Amino acid sequence: MGHKENPPETQDEVLYGVSSTVLDNIRIALDTKRYKHLRFLLKELHAADVADVMLHLSVEERESFLEAIKAVFDPNILIELEPSILTHVLDVLDINALAKAISGLNSDDALYIIEDLKEEKRQKLLLSLPAKDRVIFEKYLTYPEQSAGRLMQREIVCVPPFWNTQQTLDFIRDTAELPQNFYDIYVVDPRHHPVGKIPLSHLVKAPRDNVVSDIMAEEIHTIPVLADQEEVALSFNHYALVSAPVVNEEGRIVGMITVDDVVEVIEEEIEEDIRLMSKVSAASDFYDPVLLTAGWRIRWLLITIVNTLIASYVISRFESSIQNLTALSFLMTINAAMGGNAGMQVVTVVVRALATRTLREGDTWRAIRKEVNVSLLVGLFCSAVLALIAGAWLHNWGISLILGISLIFNILWAGFAGTFLPIFIEKLGMDPAISAGPLLTTTTDVFGYTIFLGLATLFLL
Amino acid sequence: MGHKENPPETQDEVLYGVSSTVLDNIRIALDTKRYKHLRFLLKELHAADVADVMLHLSVEERESFLEAIKAVFDPNILIELEPSILTHVLDVLDINALAKAISGLNSDDALYIIEDLKEEKRQKLLLSLPAKDRVIFEKYLTYPEQSAGRLMQREIVCVPPFWNTQQTLDFIRDTAELPQNFYDIYVVDPRHHPVGKIPLSHLVKAPRDNVVSDIMAEEIHTIPVLADQEEVALSFNHYALVSAPVVNEEGRIVGMITVDDVVEVIEEEIEEDIRLMSKVSAASDFYDPVLLTAGWRIRWLLITIVNTLIASYVISRFESSIQNLTALSFLMTINAAMGGNAGMQVVTVVVRALATRTLREGDTWRAIRKEVNVSLLVGLFCSAVLALIAGAWLHNWGISLILGISLIFNILWAGFAGTFLPIFIEKLGMDPAISAGPLLTTTTDVFGYTIFLGLATLFLL
Repeated sequence: MGHKENPPETQDEVLYGVSSTVLDNIRIALDTKRYKHLRFLLKELHAADVADVMLHLSVEERESFLEAIKAVFDPNILIELEPSILTHVLDVLDINALAKAISGLNSDDALYIIEDLKEEKRQKLLLSLPAKDRVIFEKYLTYPEQSAGRLMQREIVCVPPFWNTQQTLDFIRDTAELPQNFYDIYVVDPRHHPVGKIPLSHLVKAPRDNVVSDIMAEEIHTIPVLADQEEVALSFNHYALVSAPVVNEEGRIVGMITVDDVVEVIEEEIEEDIRLMSKVSAASDFYDPVLLTAGWRIRWLLITIVNTLIASYVISRFESSIQNLTALSFLMTINAAMGGNAGMQVVTVVVRALATRTLREGDTWRAIRKEVNVSLLVGLFCSAVLALIAGAWLHNWGISLILGISLIFNILWAGFAGTFLPIFIEKLGMDPAISAGPLLTTTTDVFGYTIFLGLATLFLL
Repeated sequence: MGHKENPPETQDEVLYGVSSTVLDNIRIALDTKRYKHLRFLLKELHAADVADVMLHLSVEERESFLEAIKAVFDPNILIELEPSILTHVLDVLDINALAKAISGLNSDDALYIIEDLKEEKRQKLLLSLPAKDRVIFEKYLTYPEQSAGRLMQREIVCVPPFWNTQQTLDFIRDTAELPQNFYDIYVVDPRHHPVGKIPLSHLVKAPRDNVVSDIMAEEIHTIPVLADQEEVALSFNHYALVSAPVVNEEGRIVGMITVDDVVEVIEEEIEEDIRLMSKVSAASDFYDPVLLTAGWRIRWLLITIVNTLIASYVISRFESSIQNLTALSFLMTINAAMGGNAGMQVVTVVVRALATRTLREGDTWRAIRKEVNVSLLVGLFCSAVLALIAGAWLHNWGISLILGISLIFNILWAGFAGTFLPIFIEKLGMDPAISAGPLLTTTTDVFGYTIFLGLATLFLL
């Protein structure tokens, strides 16, 4: 934290981030062009906090901010920036500043920046790097996006199984080119296949003459270089890993992934899931351009437009029934809304369970049975409540009975379809987080309007 | 990974978890009561994988499974179990088995089990522990749930600033009671206040005669013992921490939190957020009892019931307009649905931005301006599309014009209220993830029906 003189106002400020006072002071220094003072204010801040400051500046402020600090720019700030801010900053920085920044980073962090450059600038930057580094990054860029190969760093500590503890410690102390931070040492055979690992804390606890092969853990969770980053995150989470070796198709160790990269991935993937489930998708930050955000939103709303049009068409088929019994017009929305909401509860649970792998193929029928049972209870309760309210309101117990019965059926359908649809969509190889929700509410709308208006037409008119 | 003889069928199985073949073999061994073979099958599995197996067994299978493995039960399995399964297992295990399990765990993991016990069983267990341990756990239990105090482990490595590298390494090698795994060494003053930290990988790289105070990083991100676990997770994520010291009210170091605990918290909190946003809440796993799940679902649906009743009431006020122009009955749902969906997109983005602290008080107007601008574009586009479709469908350009105009206003309202409501709710000290959604859709329903039916009544009837 650094400064503890003033008691912070809220719990937040104790733990992380810049306070609004610091932010205000930075803004003032920027506005009054006192750049020396600005650099002084920033000197005490962690790179993540400087990135946080830049998030809260306007586009113009950010550009003069960059101009002011460019001589003392810490490359670690780049990797902490929000994606939309990073794109802007990379546009502003020139090739020389970028090349300098890249050389100060671990290979995985440098790659993160290179990935984000526009094609033309990326080529220029790669050409300005030393040949050795250029080859490395070009190799990196051949791995698919969001694969383990893009996440890993090439800097690793590998030792042969026949060394002892002391030799290993001496090797670490005497080798200049090691990762900035590492938590495990990998034991490799002569073909460079990993055969074990030693957590660093076990190495320093072991007697000096212990042989590496005796103290290493043979249970290593190797990551194939082409594995998807979501799988990598689930694996780290499942086995509570702090680092894991990455191997190529031949099983040779080519790098390692550390838990900090994975925490990023978890946040990213879950953010993505939340957005997909809420039909928001990418480019929705306040820091993205209006036109881009509107474009994404409209794409999702187009699905909604189709849904509502289908529902409207279904209702229009019952036009004359509604004209004869106008109470139908305000009760029909209850059935559709309740079915949609109950169904979305089920879809959310099932989609999450599929994403976290707590629900698998073999559990399909068990899950459907459970959800249908729950829906039966939920349906009985909600339809009783709503039928009673509708009856008391309209003094028409015929229509309230039909509302209750159609509601039970719609909620039961929501329970069945809400479980079945996501599982089915995943089986087809598509992402249920995107399509299950709109598909389900279309069915609950169609089913809800049809059964309520249909039963009313049959029995009341 | 262990066995690599058979090529795995899917990418999933390469990275983690048990394959369905392994699961089937375990089931067969269990059904045929070949418990020795069962234990043999389990020997090769990581504790997290055994927990995974138990998740997929039925209640009865799980009980005979526990009976079969109880003699060789690995306590680490307990901390990997899903909450609802853990509760069941703790019910089945007797006090002696529990006490044995507790003694084999790190203090934070042991606490996790003790927390989950029913009051009576917890007291019995605490009494069966050695007095020293009992005192420690009783102290632990005085920290609020979901606080840093409950997450931390007491086992830490602390050294004085005047030691050198060699002394520190000798201390680590010669001290028996150290944490199983650690990644940083904390430097403390005589009052036991942390003054610096050394990542273990820096310690082993440093020359033997370097003094601790020269190689330590003074930037330590201490965590107050009462801090909320969500704040802890955000702080770890922000500064990419692997471990952090926990201090009590006097600033004394009392424990440490490691990144694996935090990964759990991140998953837990985000799971909670997703559930709150989707109005599902706790007890929604397939592995929870039907009655419990139904109870939770109904609680949320009660809010929905109120919403739909309000909307129904609004519509009923326009009963005679609908009777005179029945097309209103099927067009009115379009306006309400589009407003609700567009508004939920906004609410989701704002709630997430508040939760991840990318949106702060000072940004309120900037966020509202952005969202209203986006909504203007979205509203213009959607209302043009829908007005054209409605006009072409009904050959009534008056009603389609009114649909278009009311849709623009409703989507604009959704953009404003969708940004303002969550920020306002958070300012009142409540959680916007729970209440912002239903509140917003109630307003878009009421506003949507009123403006569309109202304008139609004024101009068309």
